[in-house]
Amino acid sequence: MLANRSFHGVLHPPPPHFTRSNSYTHSLSSSFSPRSETTPLLPPSLSTGPSNKRRSSLFCIQAQSEPSESTSDAAALYTQPFSAKIPVGDRHSSSGKKGKEEMSSTVGQVIRCKAAVAWEAGKPLVIEEVEVAPPQKMEVRLKILFTSLCHTDVYFWEAKGQNPLFPRILGHEAGGIVESVGEGVTELAPGDHVLPVFTGECKECAHCKSEVSNMCELLRINTDRGVMIHDGKSRFSINGQPIYHFVGTSTFSEYTVVHVGCVVKINPLAPLDKVCILSCGISTGFGATVNVAKPTKGSTVAVFGLGAVGLAAAEGARVSGASRIIGVDFHANKLQRAKQFGVTEFVNPKDYTKPVQEVIAEMTEGGVDRSIECTGHIDAMISAFECVHDGWGVAVLVGVPHKDAVFKTHPINFLNERTLKGTFFGNYKPRSDIPAVVEKYMNKELELEKFITHQVPFSEINKAFDYLLKGESIRCIIRMEH
Amino acid sequence: MLANRSFHGVLHPPPPHFTRSNSYTHSLSSSFSPRSETTPLLPPSLSTGPSNKRRSSLFCIQAQSEPSESTSDAAALYTQPFSAKIPVGDRHSSSGKKGKEEMSSTVGQVIRCKAAVAWEAGKPLVIEEVEVAPPQKMEVRLKILFTSLCHTDVYFWEAKGQNPLFPRILGHEAGGIVESVGEGVTELAPGDHVLPVFTGECKECAHCKSEVSNMCELLRINTDRGVMIHDGKSRFSINGQPIYHFVGTSTFSEYTVVHVGCVVKINPLAPLDKVCILSCGISTGFGATVNVAKPTKGSTVAVFGLGAVGLAAAEGARVSGASRIIGVDFHANKLQRAKQFGVTEFVNPKDYTKPVQEVIAEMTEGGVDRSIECTGHIDAMISAFECVHDGWGVAVLVGVPHKDAVFKTHPINFLNERTLKGTFFGNYKPRSDIPAVVEKYMNKELELEKFITHQVPFSEINKAFDYLLKGESIRCIIRMEH
Repeated sequence: MLANRSFHGVLHPPPPHFTRSNSYTHSLSSSFSPRSETTPLLPPSLSTGPSNKRRSSLFCIQAQSEPSESTSDAAALYTQPFSAKIPVGDRHSSSGKKGKEEMSSTVGQVIRCKAAVAWEAGKPLVIEEVEVAPPQKMEVRLKILFTSLCHTDVYFWEAKGQNPLFPRILGHEAGGIVESVGEGVTELAPGDHVLPVFTGECKECAHCKSEVSNMCELLRINTDRGVMIHDGKSRFSINGQPIYHFVGTSTFSEYTVVHVGCVVKINPLAPLDKVCILSCGISTGFGATVNVAKPTKGSTVAVFGLGAVGLAAAEGARVSGASRIIGVDFHANKLQRAKQFGVTEFVNPKDYTKPVQEVIAEMTEGGVDRSIECTGHIDAMISAFECVHDGWGVAVLVGVPHKDAVFKTHPINFLNERTLKGTFFGNYKPRSDIPAVVEKYMNKELELEKFITHQVPFSEINKAFDYLLKGESIRCIIRMEH
Repeated sequence: MLANRSFHGVLHPPPPHFTRSNSYTHSLSSSFSPRSETTPLLPPSLSTGPSNKRRSSLFCIQAQSEPSESTSDAAALYTQPFSAKIPVGDRHSSSGKKGKEEMSSTVGQVIRCKAAVAWEAGKPLVIEEVEVAPPQKMEVRLKILFTSLCHTDVYFWEAKGQNPLFPRILGHEAGGIVESVGEGVTELAPGDHVLPVFTGECKECAHCKSEVSNMCELLRINTDRGVMIHDGKSRFSINGQPIYHFVGTSTFSEYTVVHVGCVVKINPLAPLDKVCILSCGISTGFGATVNVAKPTKGSTVAVFGLGAVGLAAAEGARVSGASRIIGVDFHANKLQRAKQFGVTEFVNPKDYTKPVQEVIAEMTEGGVDRSIECTGHIDAMISAFECVHDGWGVAVLVGVPHKDAVFKTHPINFLNERTLKGTFFGNYKPRSDIPAVVEKYMNKELELEKFITHQVPFSEINKAFDYLLKGESIRCIIRMEH
């Protein structure tokens, strides 16, 4: 009854008796909040929306993989970090066709480029020539070099349940370079290597000033907004018809416009075709473990759901020196690949008649030290909480629940000194923290290649949807073809 | 629908679907655990049992108070800390009639003394002459000087629902001195000033070795056991008839026998008629705040339930430098006294039509930084969790729930980065940590006098029950009359 359900549950505001007053809400922070009763919510790194249907098998693992096609010229890059050569591919490699100088000619101009437009729910994306307006106040226009496909994109593309918002340019995991900046942008300049992120960091609100929160009041994810905050308008159009943005990123376009608070400046030597996956799911899972669950060396850790986020959570446990990493999933064939991510044992709830939390407690003399729930299924959430050891166990919820889901447990499970936390984007403050995650990859502390099972050119973006829908890919990198 | 319910809810094992396997349980740790399906559980600092009835107004506050009757001779004590003079009364004062030398004559002998025996449920205690056997292996015989009455005593005295265990000597908050020690006891010696505690610290199990847990496998509270662990026998008898122990302490007796792991050695200068209340409820509430909720200076804190434990939680917030302490209770008359404990604002849920979590969120721009739930009522637990701010809020459950209670919330409340924890005895490891709490009192960081509203001689112990049942007392100190 758990794992292998959609990591991307459907997320609505909680039912009335769970809601809190919304009199104090900020207009732009109504999503992903229990306060609003009208706005669909979107999760830690995942988007969801008002549907009653649950998805299945969305984060699957498969051995199939294509090697990166990137070239390399690390030395040249090192001395010319902002040159026309754009590092992508293997660590310290580069590729890319246009540089700072060439792009600068487009500053202040409308750019005509290719974008994959979702004209209506569930229909294949169409590569169109779109017009991308210059960035306005506190905005940045990015040239996207690589983007990857996440279930959130698929979820909003299918639009089963949400208010449909079409035509729209989806995409939110990506790597690119700054083409130009709008008024007031001082932290970024053309040529900077960046990752756009679906949630932002204004650095001025109570959340940004808090040492622990990353739920920026201004730039917290909003899946219902298809326009820019500054003027309520889209920067995309086709022959004058506006095309909606998606979670402030819309990376299925050669160029896109993003609020500066949602743009992470990273080491220009980092290969964008690898680190682009840190824009969402991988950071979410990895951060859930290293920032929130915080297993100590030698700890036992359970990970519910062995999709991309769960595997990233396992990777976090591996990096933390966990002695045992117990993967829980309904699909036995996930074990083999999960071993690459540090998973040492596998529990398939189907193999037992008793609740999986009891199975895990028996395996671990009373429970694991930490658990991370990456399925979004309410039964898995309850199991993940109840499988941690009394006295010190900590469970972390990552997966996004169904709008009607209710977490239930006997309160004595808390009184016996168990802790339950949830996390959004792995508790990373995007601009402040993600550059250091990129460095972890550069230092070989964090492995990203193993998440990338497929790669397609932009013109074949619909194949990426197929791979994901069939459960074949963990991450499929989509190479833009500037 | 919340507060002013019994802090002492009724605590059963969770219903089957919440239970975990008990195949790994330690025989002595079955209480206060979700693993056992047959043993009534007992809470953080409070005892409860299998009843479907809920109590009301058990932790009440009343201005009525009697001054301490202690005498003082601090200087003499300071130079003769183990002399016949036993410090009680005001800070650095003393009183008491028998000392180390006199008591030593009783070593190895049965002591005949007075005890208040509960012969049957709900009937007034009877002061009897009992025989107290010498301490056996890893046991200590204590001379009790002061004891106080807690709702847990009343709950098991009423025995509504639990398996009745009579005749029994109740009592678990107390201060005394070591009369003699049994085989293997090396950390304590006759004359030591001590607090017996209902839960212990063996210092050898996984919990005791953990940096965070205080839920000792061996000595975790067990309300069903009326005998000593060593030999399964009682040390109390009347004309050969065994009298049952209570939570390993049975402090309503001039002498009692306690496992060494449940005895806290404290500063001999500490007045036992004050610090005796640190044996249970006050440490529980205070520790819930300072050890678990951990508000930082300037934080906003909500406390649900303004009984003794809730007031101690407020005291913890005051000591931590909280800027606002919002007390939540159904009885408006509790506000005045609560101010002494740092409460700055009062919310009576009866005054609002909306859920109290919404009221608090509106008062605090989105929620309090910390909340501590001290009623045991499930609705208060849910409110306490949902009233904390997203991004960083932490709620701590202290009150003990009804056996059928189910904690319910929309999981998005966790995903929005709220944390829910529970605590047992304020997360204090009794032997390791409580001496430092006594020092906090000695250093005037923690105020205890304000909790003590009444005092009676041992012969009038039934009056203490009356005060508590009428909701007149916070703590009533019972002076033994050696």
